[in-house]
Amino acid sequence: MISLLDYYTTKFGELWEKSLSDLIQEAVNGVLKSNKLNKKQIDAIFFANMLAGVLENNLHISAKLAELIGLNIPIYRVEAACASGGAAFSLANNYLNANSNKTVIVIGAEKMTDYSPEETTQALAGAASGEEQEAGLTFSGLYGMMANFYFEKYGCSEENLAYVSVKNHFHGSLNEKAQFRNKITIDDVLQSPYVAHPLKVMDSAPISDGASAVILSNNQSIIKKSKCSIKVLSSQMINDTISLKSRKRPDEILATKIAADKAFQESKLERIDINVAEVHDCFSIAEILALEDLGFWEKGQGGKKITENSTRWGSNSRLIINTSGGLKAAGHPVGATGIKQIGEIFLQLTGHATNRQVKKVRYGLAHNVGGSGGTAVVTILAS
Amino acid sequence: MISLLDYYTTKFGELWEKSLSDLIQEAVNGVLKSNKLNKKQIDAIFFANMLAGVLENNLHISAKLAELIGLNIPIYRVEAACASGGAAFSLANNYLNANSNKTVIVIGAEKMTDYSPEETTQALAGAASGEEQEAGLTFSGLYGMMANFYFEKYGCSEENLAYVSVKNHFHGSLNEKAQFRNKITIDDVLQSPYVAHPLKVMDSAPISDGASAVILSNNQSIIKKSKCSIKVLSSQMINDTISLKSRKRPDEILATKIAADKAFQESKLERIDINVAEVHDCFSIAEILALEDLGFWEKGQGGKKITENSTRWGSNSRLIINTSGGLKAAGHPVGATGIKQIGEIFLQLTGHATNRQVKKVRYGLAHNVGGSGGTAVVTILAS
Repeated sequence: MISLLDYYTTKFGELWEKSLSDLIQEAVNGVLKSNKLNKKQIDAIFFANMLAGVLENNLHISAKLAELIGLNIPIYRVEAACASGGAAFSLANNYLNANSNKTVIVIGAEKMTDYSPEETTQALAGAASGEEQEAGLTFSGLYGMMANFYFEKYGCSEENLAYVSVKNHFHGSLNEKAQFRNKITIDDVLQSPYVAHPLKVMDSAPISDGASAVILSNNQSIIKKSKCSIKVLSSQMINDTISLKSRKRPDEILATKIAADKAFQESKLERIDINVAEVHDCFSIAEILALEDLGFWEKGQGGKKITENSTRWGSNSRLIINTSGGLKAAGHPVGATGIKQIGEIFLQLTGHATNRQVKKVRYGLAHNVGGSGGTAVVTILAS
Repeated sequence: MISLLDYYTTKFGELWEKSLSDLIQEAVNGVLKSNKLNKKQIDAIFFANMLAGVLENNLHISAKLAELIGLNIPIYRVEAACASGGAAFSLANNYLNANSNKTVIVIGAEKMTDYSPEETTQALAGAASGEEQEAGLTFSGLYGMMANFYFEKYGCSEENLAYVSVKNHFHGSLNEKAQFRNKITIDDVLQSPYVAHPLKVMDSAPISDGASAVILSNNQSIIKKSKCSIKVLSSQMINDTISLKSRKRPDEILATKIAADKAFQESKLERIDINVAEVHDCFSIAEILALEDLGFWEKGQGGKKITENSTRWGSNSRLIINTSGGLKAAGHPVGATGIKQIGEIFLQLTGHATNRQVKKVRYGLAHNVGGSGGTAVVTILAS
């Protein structure tokens, strides 16, 4: 059995005074110090990053990390657009399943705010299909198209979607590492400018800097010495067609469905067992689709369900969503996001989520998506 | 036990009529067709690429590959500079050690010649440390510094190094997939222009396009149906400091030494057991260092040893090096190189190396390096 022993994240936000290396170093040192681990006890590192190559001609970061940390171990760099963190985590899980008595760090990091929003948006668009890029589509445009299709088919509205962002900003107000700590109202969302109809600024995750790291181990003596730990029951990655036009249904993310089915099957759990989940809300519509495709809500019901506020901290429901603030309020440094999601579940399942702690939590789920759904990673964790 | 069932490579060279997608599709289709495998028998794909993000803003290629091949499976993209192929292979090996009855494709691809040599050289320099980049150092410069240090310490000369390129061009003349099929002389090398003293054009691997793929499996029924197969005894990746100045010894690649020791230990073989090896000759000096650091030759003896022509096809020695033509003559599409090296060993160990077949081969080794030695992967294979 693989255990998750600790989690550290930098603050997410516009961290102009910090370089990518600074962020990586803070996260690695933070997670090692927190667990009182000597770096020599680390057998491998899995590193997630999407944009350093495109934005700052910075490749081969695995070796840069080897120099930073001063270790001669395998360090793997993985890229799967905004699902890079989840992909790295699932590979680390594989590594531990293949090798006994090992301890690894999984770290995700991204530095996005040193460039103009246009440069960063164009770099992010590199994760879409060539045809979509040539048509001038950004990810706001792609998710806008999904939202319009969903609205027409199921009668959901912009006001329905606004509930996602209001909830996630409320959660962000409780998370000191979140990029946005301000609570917002439905009107704040509805009055924000359109980015790609029907999605508005306040439906959209921001551009962020940040790094997050977790320690995974199957070394029993290290696990026993750890002050707390949770178990990784399953981590499944699935890819799907990159382009929206090739999908049978633009109102679902098939990769999420398949990955979720496989993860629930491997972990021998039912949907009703999950108490906390971090899902990929890069845009408000994405959280609605996620809850449906993960099997928590029926397809088409999400627009109505979100207005019941049942997934909000403090509600009496069995399932609270995105207590970190989600991508919307916690921020979305793309390589880090998948690790931060898993880390938030770690905090909840170990009782370390402070003022946003959900009561009676036993099982948690993290859901990380790349692009418009070409990649999805679903990870299930148990206290 | 993990078996390698088949290998396909596109021709390497200046393939202006083919896009990165074309190359990937040719390699995937080629390796599936060669083994009469249905694509539905593939459980995962490991994809190596270094430069598509920097050169053509092309990221999230895993999902693009999912669309190309029409499968909903996990597809992992790995980047470790020029060792991306080896890194992907070692992760695929881990995946199979963690999961039984699985079959995977490992593919490496790179498209480098659609850009000016200056653009491609600058993109490649992204794999060096920030400080080295700011100092204007390219990889020719870094390996040039290593060569000068080696010359001064051990008395090796430019003429000694020339033997590496002459041998590898001779091998390339026997390989129909090689970028360069022309035999060259010591004088051809010595009279070629300097790139970074003492390294000349003819000491240096070219800029290339190409894609290579292998099939790995631990599914016994698929292995039994395969017309031939070899065994993966070990595949070890190790990282080291990115910058030359941080190394204790600039005359060795420490990552190669550690990875080789681990690979020989796991495979329970001695150096003398290896009959064919593909080593990372991005520059002629790199092949000399590789043979020493892998433990085949004593440190400092390589300059003299190479002039004996013992590693050349047709010699009576136990160990023939770079029968594919190496990076120098076969070409160096960086993401593909690590896979092509392993594929060449497959051809040799299965008796499919046609006019460059080495006799009585039982064990082979592939050695893939990233940057100036920040990453090394050593893979040992058995017939």
